[in-house]
Amino acid sequence: MADDDLLRATTEYLHEQIPLTRAMGVQVASYDGREVVVTAPLAPNHNHLGTAFGGSLSVMATLAGYALLWLELRDRTAHVVIRRSSLQFHRPIRGELRAHGRAPDATALAEFREDFARKAKARLELRVEIIEDGHVAVEFTGTFVAVR
Amino acid sequence: MADDDLLRATTEYLHEQIPLTRAMGVQVASYDGREVVVTAPLAPNHNHLGTAFGGSLSVMATLAGYALLWLELRDRTAHVVIRRSSLQFHRPIRGELRAHGRAPDATALAEFREDFARKAKARLELRVEIIEDGHVAVEFTGTFVAVR
Repeated sequence: MADDDLLRATTEYLHEQIPLTRAMGVQVASYDGREVVVTAPLAPNHNHLGTAFGGSLSVMATLAGYALLWLELRDRTAHVVIRRSSLQFHRPIRGELRAHGRAPDATALAEFREDFARKAKARLELRVEIIEDGHVAVEFTGTFVAVR
Repeated sequence: MADDDLLRATTEYLHEQIPLTRAMGVQVASYDGREVVVTAPLAPNHNHLGTAFGGSLSVMATLAGYALLWLELRDRTAHVVIRRSSLQFHRPIRGELRAHGRAPDATALAEFREDFARKAKARLELRVEIIEDGHVAVEFTGTFVAVR
């Protein structure tokens, strides 16, 4: 599957399966095998101060985690859920919401794949950053579980 | 202001200021001076498994925190933002999303009000639970800051 097709298919999957992502204008914008970037415009996601709503930022970080796992596993029978998360909000976002989900190191990822193949269940901790103008505005750590 | 009017006004304020809350069907359902309950239907908030989307649950918990602070402060010049949050997802939600935000003990609340009156800035940690059929499905702890 061409890269653009993969991004488009993942975006469509999100919109079909999680209707809130359509209302938010979420797009899976890029994936280079190490990092996924999930974006959304500010307009449907602003708060009472005209900056990005903390709840929308939390959603974006969660979605970057899901997208990373779906793209890594390439297995639509994998049911990915979130088990635990923590967020720190350092500064407001004034424009587009851009969540950068980073693949964990090769050892953790190999262990995750092996657990998933062998036990049909695997757990992984992922870090996501929401970045604007080179500054990390939000830091997210989430524990995700994939079950077949 | 009558109780129903206060709830309706707070719901309208949310819908106007944070458009995502309208897309999610969020309602401020009750407030007894100690606990606020914020609800949303499952339909616009389901995930790829047909249960409540983790991101929507995170939004509901954040909103219960905002609503509690707005209702406690009764001051629309107060700018409430979230600084930090942590969530634990214990079990899926299969029906309506109901977030219960509890006011902290009287001492913490008095200190928060005093700081806000004196320094025009105050910080408060709030706990929110999302409950279904008597079971706590999601636990949230958030640190909120109010600035005038």
